[in-house]
Amino acid sequence: MVTDIEIARQANRKPITEIAAALGVQDEELEPYGRYKAKLNQSLFDRLADVPDGKLVLVTAINPTPAGEGKTTTSVGLGQAMAKIGKKAVVALREPSLGPVFGIKGGAAGGGYAQVVPMEDINLHFTGDMHAITAANNLLCAMLDNHIHQGNALKIDTRRILISRCMDMNDRALRSVVVGLGGKPNGFVREDGFCITVASEVMAIFCLAENLHDLKERLGKILVAYSTEGEPVYAKDLHAQGAMAALLKDAINPNLVQTLENTPAIMHGGPFANIAHGCNSVRATRIALKLADYCITEAGFGSDLGAEKFLDIKCRLAGLTPAAIVLVATARALKYNGGVPKAETAAPNPEALKKGIVNLGAHIENMRSYGVPVVVAINRFETDSVEELQYIEHYCREQGAEFALSEVFAKGGEGGIELAKKVTAACEQDNSFHCLYPDSSTIAEKIERIATEIYGAKDVAYAPKAKKALKEIAALGGGSLPVCIAKTQYSLSDDASLLGRPQGFTLHIRDLKLSSGAGFVVAYAGNVMVMPGLPRVPSAENIDVTDDGRITGLF
Amino acid sequence: MVTDIEIARQANRKPITEIAAALGVQDEELEPYGRYKAKLNQSLFDRLADVPDGKLVLVTAINPTPAGEGKTTTSVGLGQAMAKIGKKAVVALREPSLGPVFGIKGGAAGGGYAQVVPMEDINLHFTGDMHAITAANNLLCAMLDNHIHQGNALKIDTRRILISRCMDMNDRALRSVVVGLGGKPNGFVREDGFCITVASEVMAIFCLAENLHDLKERLGKILVAYSTEGEPVYAKDLHAQGAMAALLKDAINPNLVQTLENTPAIMHGGPFANIAHGCNSVRATRIALKLADYCITEAGFGSDLGAEKFLDIKCRLAGLTPAAIVLVATARALKYNGGVPKAETAAPNPEALKKGIVNLGAHIENMRSYGVPVVVAINRFETDSVEELQYIEHYCREQGAEFALSEVFAKGGEGGIELAKKVTAACEQDNSFHCLYPDSSTIAEKIERIATEIYGAKDVAYAPKAKKALKEIAALGGGSLPVCIAKTQYSLSDDASLLGRPQGFTLHIRDLKLSSGAGFVVAYAGNVMVMPGLPRVPSAENIDVTDDGRITGLF
Repeated sequence: MVTDIEIARQANRKPITEIAAALGVQDEELEPYGRYKAKLNQSLFDRLADVPDGKLVLVTAINPTPAGEGKTTTSVGLGQAMAKIGKKAVVALREPSLGPVFGIKGGAAGGGYAQVVPMEDINLHFTGDMHAITAANNLLCAMLDNHIHQGNALKIDTRRILISRCMDMNDRALRSVVVGLGGKPNGFVREDGFCITVASEVMAIFCLAENLHDLKERLGKILVAYSTEGEPVYAKDLHAQGAMAALLKDAINPNLVQTLENTPAIMHGGPFANIAHGCNSVRATRIALKLADYCITEAGFGSDLGAEKFLDIKCRLAGLTPAAIVLVATARALKYNGGVPKAETAAPNPEALKKGIVNLGAHIENMRSYGVPVVVAINRFETDSVEELQYIEHYCREQGAEFALSEVFAKGGEGGIELAKKVTAACEQDNSFHCLYPDSSTIAEKIERIATEIYGAKDVAYAPKAKKALKEIAALGGGSLPVCIAKTQYSLSDDASLLGRPQGFTLHIRDLKLSSGAGFVVAYAGNVMVMPGLPRVPSAENIDVTDDGRITGLF
Repeated sequence: MVTDIEIARQANRKPITEIAAALGVQDEELEPYGRYKAKLNQSLFDRLADVPDGKLVLVTAINPTPAGEGKTTTSVGLGQAMAKIGKKAVVALREPSLGPVFGIKGGAAGGGYAQVVPMEDINLHFTGDMHAITAANNLLCAMLDNHIHQGNALKIDTRRILISRCMDMNDRALRSVVVGLGGKPNGFVREDGFCITVASEVMAIFCLAENLHDLKERLGKILVAYSTEGEPVYAKDLHAQGAMAALLKDAINPNLVQTLENTPAIMHGGPFANIAHGCNSVRATRIALKLADYCITEAGFGSDLGAEKFLDIKCRLAGLTPAAIVLVATARALKYNGGVPKAETAAPNPEALKKGIVNLGAHIENMRSYGVPVVVAINRFETDSVEELQYIEHYCREQGAEFALSEVFAKGGEGGIELAKKVTAACEQDNSFHCLYPDSSTIAEKIERIATEIYGAKDVAYAPKAKKALKEIAALGGGSLPVCIAKTQYSLSDDASLLGRPQGFTLHIRDLKLSSGAGFVVAYAGNVMVMPGLPRVPSAENIDVTDDGRITGLF
């Protein structure tokens, strides 16, 4: 069996200048980072401002299972397949975080014959965007603690600091810390914690900013703390937004790379899909739509988290309209949803499939409710029986969705031709896209609509802390913002153990937080881990580099 | 008055590919990072392995004073002046850290008409080396805490952990922290602290490694902790060195940029000059010596710290021989050493000059004791009187050093022609370079020689902790390593308030630490701050970026 990294290394890569030239990008609009990576400059945005947009295709999935669905692989393969049917497409993906690379998950640039390259670079430092975001966030935190140390003119209440330092690493020891120990020279002692970089509000802002000006405005609006008098303190009160934006000035330009089959791929930004909105940057999506006839993008986790936020946050704030939605599933994952343990999902099991397919049904129904054509892509495994696949196909058609098998992992673009044809056809269908709720609804009304119409809950219950937060956020003027619900990705409900299509449950909101820079309100339905830990044997232990610079052990 | 950033922006920069081509670097040996930065690949090292080395010129200084000496500016200006007198030179400098950029010091790419460009990029993320070092160090720390959390098979004693997390930021709140709070899922509670990235052993290793293989070996040798049974635990016991090296695989290739006058400049690595050896990477120096007839490099702080370590650690370990040493001073700084407050150093004051010039005398004597020709460069200010300058010149000649005025800040390379001529002449003089002490001396003997012969101490006193550490380090096999003394940079002694040329003092060693990966023993003479703090008004508050991406407020 050939590994992903071996396949990636054998790729017939073209210089990134060639990939860019084929897209019509001019020399001075491209900032090369080595031979196979580049950033797209603001001048390209300016020149193409009036070019009509291509079609926006969102790739999402059922709820994640340990069996794996292959959403990124399908996105990349679909991009490759578009070229096979003569369409000009650009893949627009999130960029990986180092944390998972050294933890369990490994790389995040697709798999098999549907990958983005150079995968080692992309999975390690890439063009430095993550590090820039980390630095900008941590500069804000250092300036905050320094302000307190130097006299605290803003009267910041050290018990009510809302931002935390971050690191692009899975490091559980940093989840909860006490800083400022050691006496007067080291500042005031207080509780603090680190989140992983992708969970920071700076990352969310980075992905929603239209340009450097907008970025700086949003950074200045980050609510960092309350004063002892209960007044909000923002990043701009610390005069931090200029230096933070300076740190991000190159990072906000989208990264251009390519797939194994030389399809242009733009990888840029990558916020969590629970406490943030889970999709690549608005700038990346915009420029992909200008450069190609089809922009294939993805959103994090299942459609209940990533796609809902893509549609209700990103598309709302950026004024985007998706032309089609691809819903990725596997026969194995549907059987897992039907109660079969992971190890047994390869064996045919019509009962389990029938029981579990309701998860797919819920996602189809949810996506269709936005008024956008839906195509189900079944990421095919060798062990899938023809009967199982036929059953799924029949089910999808009954639910009003198109259906295609995808074999892009094993065959690259060739294996995605059927899917590409279905998707391009779907893009021509009637489209009545609309967000789930209007801006004018209250935060509680927005949460209720997501809970009942997308998750299938019967109602929503608020903890006392959450009730208090609802009022505070309204008082701060956050009432008209969209809502970003942070809940488990493993279930449509807020209980990770409820597979399939849970019903009649209550969604429990324990707290809310105003991400005023990003422009949404986070509602916490359960405990959401913002700093992962390393497993017993971290993949870092197997990652190595040869004397001549070849990375090994990266998957 | 034109600011540094304005001068830098008006520079007539050449594409970095042109700068490289003029040095004979072939296309595939260069990895461009944008248009004006590039990395020099290993293949260049391989091709030039047998080319004879150019001359190595070290730029150092008297003890730093608040008046500022301009060591980097002189180094850059000297490089520029070399071209004016028809010599092929490369400037090899340290790369800046973000911490000081946002703190007090500002940028670190020279000043006036002797700067390295693009200064904004260099002072912000440059090619990401600092971030890669931060990530490698923090991965090691995360793997260490994870090992303990997952059962602690190595029986690591959480009271005796020797490494700390790092951040490239001035953040006093992180100096002393408690991590692992919050219960079982978050690991074990323990004391920890963050150093600034440049103070990490990973940075020191990065700067001493010959190649990727050597880097990985050294990373594996980092002493991370002791076990509860008192046994040493190394990074390789955690299987961390492969992934750490993978994170550094691109970073270890030196960065090529240019001065305002298109002189090639290699900026790479930048360890502290107290707890580490304070000079740029061995790889950068090596390749500069292959590419040019003169490699102009600098070492941190005054010659007692930076140059001593450059000579006794870097030159020893890498087998380098300096051809000449440039000692930078200013009339103002010498008057400050004579007891004049900073605000009054501009006014003529022959008595103060006479009193303070002994500091310069000590540095000349020390540098000459290594058997290398010394040229004193007086960084000239408008307010310097002719009498003062003549007095200094006369003093230098008496001490056996050459003398030149430098006006590179105001005039660029033109202002350094006299200096360049003196330096090239010095490079042709007799050279009997030898390190201060042999490898075979004990650690205590090495400390004593540095203390008495370089610092001017009468003897050395060890705290009980230091006496114990001496034995432990010898037991671990570190007895034959060179010594890296961490002391204040502001005095030749270990008391920052003793200016001029203190004598008859005792050097107090309070502790020692084995940097077994870097290959030296750090001896702490006083408290050395490894994590700076931000000042009352951090320069970050003034740094900004315009809507079209121009950085402002960076000095």
